[in-house]
Amino acid sequence: MKNNDLPDFDKGVNGLLPAIAQDRHSGEVLMVAYMNRHAFNETVRTGFAVYYSRSKNRLWPKGETSGHYQRVREILVDCDADTILLKVDQVGAACHQGYKSCFFRKWTPDGPETVDKRLIDPNEIYGEN
Amino acid sequence: MKNNDLPDFDKGVNGLLPAIAQDRHSGEVLMVAYMNRHAFNETVRTGFAVYYSRSKNRLWPKGETSGHYQRVREILVDCDADTILLKVDQVGAACHQGYKSCFFRKWTPDGPETVDKRLIDPNEIYGEN
Repeated sequence: MKNNDLPDFDKGVNGLLPAIAQDRHSGEVLMVAYMNRHAFNETVRTGFAVYYSRSKNRLWPKGETSGHYQRVREILVDCDADTILLKVDQVGAACHQGYKSCFFRKWTPDGPETVDKRLIDPNEIYGEN
Repeated sequence: MKNNDLPDFDKGVNGLLPAIAQDRHSGEVLMVAYMNRHAFNETVRTGFAVYYSRSKNRLWPKGETSGHYQRVREILVDCDADTILLKVDQVGAACHQGYKSCFFRKWTPDGPETVDKRLIDPNEIYGEN
């Protein structure tokens, strides 16, 4: 792999850039997570989305617990080289709450409104706890 | 407007959360910028995307210079309440480089590849300089 001038991880807070996962067929925005250079390189190497978890402070291969992997088909980078867009094939549900997309709530002046249906019971993914 | 538990701006770095603008018809992801609470409230109040510019350190009504406004038709918030998704009608080009979307470059092992056509000469938008 040749040197590549993008993404520019030096622009990120603590070397982390936001990465959007988008369903490559429907165009649905599934989630946003963060990548550092190592996560990005692992994504390229494996062909599956690998993020950096800011809560676990380690690489987070998406689907490691749930089995809901994201096969990465295309990687786009924005004009400022500080945001990543992954076109993916999502296995199962992107959201840990069991929705296809993490963006299942609409803002309204009267409070959030759920606009999507759960695909999967989260207890089936992660076990009761 | 009632109190609303989302988005949660306390989760953002310096109170800023990433906001994705998506073409509401084509599903194309147009850009990512940042909002603080004030920018979000101005977006809701005006119906047009207002971001917070991290370079100018002030509110940035998208299109203020270019005329390329974003009419906001729907606002979605993710499960963690720390990312905003705007479904918009984009006037002209979202990207200051004259492309419809800021994500006009594909990452490849051999370097970036432009995958979109310019809609507009940036000099026509911002003047030669």
